[in-house]
Amino acid sequence: MSFAHDVVAIGNAIVDVIAPAEDGFLQAHGLAKGAMTLIDEAQAEALYGKMAPGIETSGGSAGNTVAGVASLGGRAAYIGKVAADQLGEVFAHDMRAIGAHFETLPLNGGAATGRCLVNVTPDGQRTMCTFLGAATELTAADVTAATIEGAAIVYLEGYLFDPPEARRAFAKAAGLARASGRMIALSLSDAFVVDRHRGALLEFIETEVDLLFANEAEIGSLFQTEDFSQAVAAIQPLVRMAALTRSEKGSVVVTPQMVQGAPAAPVDKVIDTTGAGDQYAAGFLFGLAKGRTPLDCARLGSLAAAEVISHYGPRPQVALAELALAKGFAPA
Amino acid sequence: MSFAHDVVAIGNAIVDVIAPAEDGFLQAHGLAKGAMTLIDEAQAEALYGKMAPGIETSGGSAGNTVAGVASLGGRAAYIGKVAADQLGEVFAHDMRAIGAHFETLPLNGGAATGRCLVNVTPDGQRTMCTFLGAATELTAADVTAATIEGAAIVYLEGYLFDPPEARRAFAKAAGLARASGRMIALSLSDAFVVDRHRGALLEFIETEVDLLFANEAEIGSLFQTEDFSQAVAAIQPLVRMAALTRSEKGSVVVTPQMVQGAPAAPVDKVIDTTGAGDQYAAGFLFGLAKGRTPLDCARLGSLAAAEVISHYGPRPQVALAELALAKGFAPA
Repeated sequence: MSFAHDVVAIGNAIVDVIAPAEDGFLQAHGLAKGAMTLIDEAQAEALYGKMAPGIETSGGSAGNTVAGVASLGGRAAYIGKVAADQLGEVFAHDMRAIGAHFETLPLNGGAATGRCLVNVTPDGQRTMCTFLGAATELTAADVTAATIEGAAIVYLEGYLFDPPEARRAFAKAAGLARASGRMIALSLSDAFVVDRHRGALLEFIETEVDLLFANEAEIGSLFQTEDFSQAVAAIQPLVRMAALTRSEKGSVVVTPQMVQGAPAAPVDKVIDTTGAGDQYAAGFLFGLAKGRTPLDCARLGSLAAAEVISHYGPRPQVALAELALAKGFAPA
Repeated sequence: MSFAHDVVAIGNAIVDVIAPAEDGFLQAHGLAKGAMTLIDEAQAEALYGKMAPGIETSGGSAGNTVAGVASLGGRAAYIGKVAADQLGEVFAHDMRAIGAHFETLPLNGGAATGRCLVNVTPDGQRTMCTFLGAATELTAADVTAATIEGAAIVYLEGYLFDPPEARRAFAKAAGLARASGRMIALSLSDAFVVDRHRGALLEFIETEVDLLFANEAEIGSLFQTEDFSQAVAAIQPLVRMAALTRSEKGSVVVTPQMVQGAPAAPVDKVIDTTGAGDQYAAGFLFGLAKGRTPLDCARLGSLAAAEVISHYGPRPQVALAELALAKGFAPA
């Protein structure tokens, strides 16, 4: 069977504002290190006013994953809402420039394009405060049957559980995907997102999700345990596959039949971990769409994650397809 | 004598859009490698549509220099015009976040904030296409006597010779600086800018400029020679000091009494040369304001330039004051 796209991803369309910060800055502003906090426009302006000089770059978890899939040579589509403003134009440009299909109409006359204020501490950890802006105006009407049915895998970011309208778009995409026999992948996105929506997420995972992405904190939050092996045992019967990331300890692929570990790819110096999980998902999804083994999918994910944490910004700065070739992966 | 600021700089306020490009891309679009070409908004949109995914970051030659002076621990002020839009807010934020004084009123209801589309080839060279936008609306009224008289050095970027209104602002700043005995520094900015305004620039240099910054191509263009030593001989009687940069060959300081070379600072890998000249000027100006010898000024300039070419973006990503300390410069 042949598809127009390997992956279609749905997410909060966000532009990142990335700046260095000391740990004391996080404490002074009551920010939970490594987490994502939702803020309103006034809070965003106040926090931005105190941040160091930064760079602006297209972000959004699923958007980053789409960029990674495209960089690996995959065909990807994106659904998400920006505003008709300068940052929205930047987001749309970057999406199309990487070769991704992106046709969601921008919001006119409403909120501005969503922004994620990313404070990166000297250890490379990123702490995020997100003003969702226009992203919350993604509606079910933006999810078209043709786009969903035209992709081998439908990838949903857990962040979409926060805006109510977007969650309906999410449900519609899942319904369309299920009806047409497409694979549904979900990223848990953030431990606090999981905490806010645990019941609904668990139900969605049990009934709809084929492939689950989560890091240790997120899968622990889902099952309210700090014991990773307990979380692995809990997810194993619920999905066809789970890919669980553990930072420098690599990742673990879980299926009903097996649990298999894959090492992290080496990195000289961790500069900024923004986008690490998103790029892991990109490598994994690309591998899956190309019929690779789960272990090879995990290795491709680790390779993409290693590239992105070695520089500022959540998207690849080199062609991941060339990087994968250089690391011994056969061409797709 | 004590000043509110070490340096006040006047320039085209610009946000950079930086993306990687192959040499073939430059050829296909008729772009002169390493140069700055002025384009209109329609051309900017057409070119942007063809560029790779990028990052957005505050730029503008003199703006970058101000950021460098502040990063070295100097007190700096900036005069330049952005629009009241998202990119204008980014520019203003970054200027204030680095601790620079920036009070120029943004333009309302006119052109958008100026943008420089920077295509960076694999050799690290940057080729720039600039849509000046709101920057052309800088007027003499934006140049206040208090700001000019409050700074030890007034730094002007040669790019301001292009927009006619801005050039009047430039002339006013020079007049105020001269009347109050301030040092006037000028950067030639670009060989083609020099070519467009050679006569006016030469006259301005002879009558107003104390300290001239130029690279080899620019000083060669000024005196219409490809012979560097001929250009050195030509500039020597015209100014109190000239700092001439020669990429990896370092720089040469010229005064009526002497010609002295300074080595380039070592760089592991040149990623993006955007801002190299601007940061050289920052180090040099900071050193001068702190009473360093010309050779030490040149060495500080080389240090700041080496930092900026080792990453994407035209402004320092580390505190240059700490870098200078680590490299053996005594605290200012």
